[in-house]
Formats: sequence, structure tokens, C-alpha cells
Amino acid sequence: MSQGKPSIPKGTRDFNPEKMLRRNYIMNTIKKVYQVYGFLPLETPAMENLSVLTGKYGDEGDQLIFKILNSGDYLSKISENPLEVGAKKLTPLISEKALRYDLTVPFARYVAMNRHEITFPFRRYQIQPVWRADRPQKGRYREFYQCDADIVGTDSLVCEAEILCMLEQVFNELGINAYKVKLNNRKLLTAITEVCGHPGREVDLCVAIDKLDKIGQEEVVKELLLKGFSDSAIAKLNPIFDLQGSNTEKLAKIEAFVGGNSIGQAGIQELRDIFNHYTAFTGNSPDKFVDIDFTLARGLSYYTGAIIEVKALNVSIGSISGGGRYDNLTGVFGVPNLSGVGISFGIDRLYDVMEELDLFKNLYTDSTKVLICHFDTETLAEGQKLAYLLRSKGIYSEIYPETSKIKKQLSYADGKKIPFAIIIGSDEITTKQYTLKNLLSGTQESLTLEGIIKVIQS
Amino acid sequence: MSQGKPSIPKGTRDFNPEKMLRRNYIMNTIKKVYQVYGFLPLETPAMENLSVLTGKYGDEGDQLIFKILNSGDYLSKISENPLEVGAKKLTPLISEKALRYDLTVPFARYVAMNRHEITFPFRRYQIQPVWRADRPQKGRYREFYQCDADIVGTDSLVCEAEILCMLEQVFNELGINAYKVKLNNRKLLTAITEVCGHPGREVDLCVAIDKLDKIGQEEVVKELLLKGFSDSAIAKLNPIFDLQGSNTEKLAKIEAFVGGNSIGQAGIQELRDIFNHYTAFTGNSPDKFVDIDFTLARGLSYYTGAIIEVKALNVSIGSISGGGRYDNLTGVFGVPNLSGVGISFGIDRLYDVMEELDLFKNLYTDSTKVLICHFDTETLAEGQKLAYLLRSKGIYSEIYPETSKIKKQLSYADGKKIPFAIIIGSDEITTKQYTLKNLLSGTQESLTLEGIIKVIQS
Repeated sequence: MSQGKPSIPKGTRDFNPEKMLRRNYIMNTIKKVYQVYGFLPLETPAMENLSVLTGKYGDEGDQLIFKILNSGDYLSKISENPLEVGAKKLTPLISEKALRYDLTVPFARYVAMNRHEITFPFRRYQIQPVWRADRPQKGRYREFYQCDADIVGTDSLVCEAEILCMLEQVFNELGINAYKVKLNNRKLLTAITEVCGHPGREVDLCVAIDKLDKIGQEEVVKELLLKGFSDSAIAKLNPIFDLQGSNTEKLAKIEAFVGGNSIGQAGIQELRDIFNHYTAFTGNSPDKFVDIDFTLARGLSYYTGAIIEVKALNVSIGSISGGGRYDNLTGVFGVPNLSGVGISFGIDRLYDVMEELDLFKNLYTDSTKVLICHFDTETLAEGQKLAYLLRSKGIYSEIYPETSKIKKQLSYADGKKIPFAIIIGSDEITTKQYTLKNLLSGTQESLTLEGIIKVIQS
Repeated sequence: MSQGKPSIPKGTRDFNPEKMLRRNYIMNTIKKVYQVYGFLPLETPAMENLSVLTGKYGDEGDQLIFKILNSGDYLSKISENPLEVGAKKLTPLISEKALRYDLTVPFARYVAMNRHEITFPFRRYQIQPVWRADRPQKGRYREFYQCDADIVGTDSLVCEAEILCMLEQVFNELGINAYKVKLNNRKLLTAITEVCGHPGREVDLCVAIDKLDKIGQEEVVKELLLKGFSDSAIAKLNPIFDLQGSNTEKLAKIEAFVGGNSIGQAGIQELRDIFNHYTAFTGNSPDKFVDIDFTLARGLSYYTGAIIEVKALNVSIGSISGGGRYDNLTGVFGVPNLSGVGISFGIDRLYDVMEELDLFKNLYTDSTKVLICHFDTETLAEGQKLAYLLRSKGIYSEIYPETSKIKKQLSYADGKKIPFAIIIGSDEITTKQYTLKNLLSGTQESLTLEGIIKVIQS
């Protein structure tokens, strides 16, 4: 019952071993840093009740949630002709569950459900795939991993400083040296709307200002005018668009701009506190990798305090990490006043950056170090003994499972990029000196098992 | 827009940090053994095209596949009233994709699609969740992880022996000492049907015999009679039901039973070869943990050679691992003659076994080792410096992010089961001797940072 060529759904990917080793390297690096900072793992189900997800991502987001068809006879409780009901109204009748769209809403749902058992402040990390019915295009997939860490249950800005430390450590360990962390505070965006005379128009201001990088100041101004911002307001905004200088200078300028506006003053104080906490941790100023940017808005997010975004420099790839502080994670699930701050890494983006910078070249990978080759039943048996000993020492080893020509065995090693081969002839069984071939350099030497282990582990 | 108490779909689970640390410990142990044996990671998408999955798991399996509703107006191409079409025929019209049901079919699909790039024999491991619309009950979930390793592209029985070695190493490292690996060969089941005069009735024989453990010999005989097996056939089967003795004795007895039956002789030779290869690897006989069992069938699986199942002893839990050899992994996808052998661990079952045997007690977990406590802004800053130094040494550390009463800070450590606290008073800043409190024993001592690191890492 062959059915011809199989395929995978558009926007999804198989990750072959080579890609997996690289992805695991990235994820394990991030995971390790999260753990060193006291974050603990959490996993939530792929499926959530549809009611948990709908209404959390805006109308557009609701459209992009993958819904799961109820099992069994899902039409049994429907009496009206579904074609007359229409897909939109039919969906909740034939689908109770959906695939998670991000990790934040399931996390909020988890915290709301388990708040009496959780020790706050709660530091959790979560690395799981999410699904979105977006139109697939280059760099945008329907299934992709998110890699989040959040601290909820404290307002302390020590946490924001810890996130800066973590960002620094992750990029350092991945070998990504050229990057900038952009930092803003939502309170300053609010203050700006108030100062320019359009209080409450924060969302419109953010949406427009968020595009500054992509479309330029002229187009942003057009959009603001279109949205009813006055000429005088836009004139007032001018210093915001091209605020130059060091972080200290920027803070001084924005302080002059917000003047007596109290929410603006609070935002400035928060930024200064984060910088001071970073210095308390490291002894250094964050100026070398953090740029304050009062136009950073990260779309229509739920951030209420710090807004963080990281861009890799010298590559054609957008932001590789982002996050911020939110005041009300679980309010929508009936648990108000839980403040938190979080950070998320984009695995696919990091992968692309590292590939573009050729950073995967020399990294340690969890793959076979040595292939044992043999000629006949007798040398196979000797090789099995060696394989078992090497494996018991934790050395990733394989023995070619069939008696084949050495050429075929070495070609297998080549295909799998195995760096060493041990070749066992009948002499070797008696002398206990085995031929170790370095498959990268082509050299070989005759060694005892102990000698071989030393070379492989060096 | 609070919506009251949220919940998760039945049959699914949140894994809190404590459970995650234990699950990760189990999965990392298995992963490490797989890697040492040369297996490389593969991941496939959660969603597969429905056509890839249907028809692979029998009619009952098809019912249990979670289908994903097409996005957008999924009714637009339907003209007939869906209520008249019926759910069964409607499903493929409104759903193109489904959640994977196991890891084997996606693996087969991957191998068929990528066979020209793969280096054979291909050793891959895959640890991912699968989804089944089964009725949830104790120990049966709608989302659960599978943890598979397969070698495809070789008939060599060296691979079966490697699987026995891996099983031994995994259980040894997890601390599970009381277990038995049951081993059979499908060829012997075939031979038995031939010898007892019902050739080709292998499936019926397997289904009945598979229940021997659960319902006993008498009921199995009843079922065989009901299915048309003759009295004389069942009389002939008698020695199969209560074959006692060592593996060597069992092999001798089955040899007498199958007589000149060639497929039976082949099955016996394979079992002997697997034993010999195991001994070549380890120097030991597998008799201490492997029991040949000619009634082992593992349901209606696709196994054609070895059949493997592992049971933990002294606990009330069923099989914890299983696998076997199959002749034709990818035939259904148009690529014939690819033989392979695989093994799979049940993470949930292993978790339950380890909990029942209290094996999680002393295991190393990836959680915070030390909490730094402080009294005011000045001691917080000193603590931040320490936290940063400890973290740079890879020691999982936290600093309490708020200035709170020491009692509250220590209660946080208690809730998170953190074993050590460093308490920094203003004296400590000048002396650089800090108070290290062992939160398990209640003792405390005054130490330099170096001294603290030594104690924590010991």
C-alpha cells in the first residue's frame, strides 16, 4: 500500500542530526545560563483549551491559532447546517482545544492555577515549540521553538539587571561578540504622549514609532499625522527621534524633555536603577553593550516597565532576543497584581546568526568520536570488546556492524564526520597495539588502548 | 476581561519544576547512553500531513489521531451539508494535518524523503511528545514523550546486542537494578503456527498469546479455540506455554519443537547470535538479565525479527521499554527493503518506577545551590558582587531580589529546597568573611568566598 512521495506540512521542518546538534548546542547554552541564575524548568501541554488562548493575541492572533478538531463524532451536537453557521461560529462548536501560540499565556495560566503551591518570586524557564498559522516565508515558520525565562512576583529591578547579565553571558558563550542590547521603559513612552499633548494615545504612538527602524522618520511622521497627532505635537517629538550621545547624555536629555511629568521621572529612575544594579553585579558599566533607545516599543506588547531588544551587528538578521516587564501577567485569569519580567531568545535567528558568522565551525558536538573497523568475525569480536570499553569511559564510539570492505567502513565514518577510526587486523589482536587513523589529517599510528583514549580525549 | 478559573485539557499535564528536573534527569541519562552508542538526534514536526499518518495504526489508531482544523474559511470548498456528509467523510475535507501519533511513522517518512542524503546504517534518536485521543486514565495520557533510538540500513545482529548493552547501561545509571529483558523472535512465532498446523495464522496466535500474562493460559486456549485453532494444534502448543529453564535450555527445547522448520531454525540462530554478540561486547553472558520468552509478541507490531520488552521487577508497573527488528520500515512510503531495529523507553513509566523505588532521593538536580541574603542597599550590592562571581564559576546562585526580612528570604530558600544561604551583614563587607548557613543541617560557619565555593562544590 505504497502511497508515493510523502511530504511535510508547509512552514514546518525536519531537523536532521547536523542541525539538531547545532540547535541543541544553542539551547543547552541558554538553558545552562538560565539554570546558573536560578531559573527552573517548566513544561505545559502543546494543547490548551481554546478558551485559554482566544482573546489574548488580538483578532489577528486569534486567526493564527491552530485549532484541534474534537475527536469522535464532532458533528453530533450540531443541528443547523454548518455551511449556514459559517466557519467562524462553527469552530468553537467542533474544536475545544488548540495548539499553544506562545509560552507566555500558558505560563500565566499555569501561575494562575498553581499560585498557592508556587514559591514567589517564581523563576521559570520554558523551552518548547509554539505553532502559528502564519503564511510561511523565509525565516518565518508555522512551528518554532521559544526559549523564555521569567521572574514573577517581584517589582525589584535587580531582576532587569540580572537579565542584562544573562544576555551578556549567553552571547559570550555562543561566541557572538558584536551585538547591542536596546533598552527602553514603557513609562517613558507614556510620558512622551502626555508631554506632546496626546495623553492616552500611547498605542498609536508606539505602533508608529516602532517602525522607525524600518520606514524612517519621514514615514513615521506621516503616520502620526494620519492618526491625528498635531503638528505641534510632532514638532515636540523631534528630539526623541534623533536623540544622540551616551546613555548618560540620553537620560539627561529625556529628563529635560519630560520635565515635571511624574511617570516620565519614574521611568528615568528605573533605567538608572537598572544600570546601577548591573554595575553592582559586574563592577562594570553596561554602556559597552546596552544602548538606551526611547523609540523601542516592541509592537503592541503588554510591557509596562523595561523593554529590551537585542540586535546582532554585522549580519542581516533582525532581533535575536527580546523581553521586558509586565504588571499584570495573570489578571486575565482572575489573579491580579502579579508583576514580572522576562526574556526570550529566538533559536532560529540565533542559528542563522551563528551560521552567518561561521561560529559552528569548531564547536563541540555530541557526535561519534571513533569508528572501529574490522575485517572478519575474529576482528569484529575484538572490536566489540574495545567498543564496550571505550563506551564505558563515556567516549562516543561505534563499531561498524557488518563485515565489509574497509573502504566502505571508512566511507561511513566520512559521511558521519567521525574524526577517528581504529582499524583492527588479526595481528592487532595478539599485539594489543591498534592502528588509530586520524581521518581529518590522514595520519595514523599504532597505539595501545590507553594511548588511543588519550589521543581521542585530547 | 477576567474569565474565571482556567484549566488544561483532560489527559494532558503541566510539569512543574520538581517534576521537570526528574524527567530531565531520566531523559538526559537515556540521551547520553544513546549518544555514547553513536546515535544522533532527529526532530520532526508535531504536525504531519494527515495522509502520512492515516492507515498506519489500524482503524482504531486512525480514530485516535488528533486532527488539526484547516485555518481560514475551511468550509469554503464544501457544497454539501456537512451533517449529511458525516464527520468521518468530512474530516479529510476540513483537516489536512494531524498531530504525530508516534515517532516511528514520522521517522520512516523522514528516511524515505531523505534517503539520498543519509549515511547508512543510520543511527538516530528522537525524544519528542506524541498525541493520542485515547480515553485518559491512570498512567495513560493524551500527550506523552516517546524516547526512541533506531538503526536502519543493516541486518547485522550486532545492533540487537548493542541494544541489550544500552538497556543495561540505562537502568544501571538510573539505579533500577531489578528488571528483566524479555526477548523473542518473530520468526519463532511464525514457525510455531506452521508446526502446529495453522500456517499464516500468526496474527491470531500473537493476539491470543500476547494476553498470556494478563488472562492466563486457560483463557488464551479458549480464545484460540474460538478463532478456529484445532484441539491438536493447541495440544502441540502446550510446551510453548510453560517452557521453563535457562535460556540455553529454552533454546534447546524450542529447537526440538520446530524440528526441520527452516524459519524456526533461522529464528533460533538469530537468538544465539545476539547472545554471542552480547558476550563479545561485554565478556559476560546476558543470562543474568535477559529471559527468552517465546510468548512475547508485543501486540500486532511490525516486528519481523527480535522482539524486546523490559519489565521492572518488584513494582506494580508494566513494561518500561520495548522494541524489536522490522524488515520494511519505509515500504509504505515507496522505499522497500530497509531493515532496522529500534528501542523505546517509556518516560512516564520510568518516572513512576523511580518514584516507587525512591530513586529520586539523592540525585543531582539542576537547581539553585545557594541563596544570598542581605539586609539593606549596601549589603544587597555586596551580595550582587558575590552572586556574579559564583555564577561566573558555574555555581547555580540566586540573590533575593528585594530587601526583606531574613526570615522571608530563608523561607524562599526553603520553598525552593535551596541547600545553602550566604547571609551578608555590614560587618561581612569589611571582613570579607561571610556567614554560610547549611539549610539542611541548620549549622553555619564564617568563611571567605573561596571557602564557601569549596563547601558548596563538595
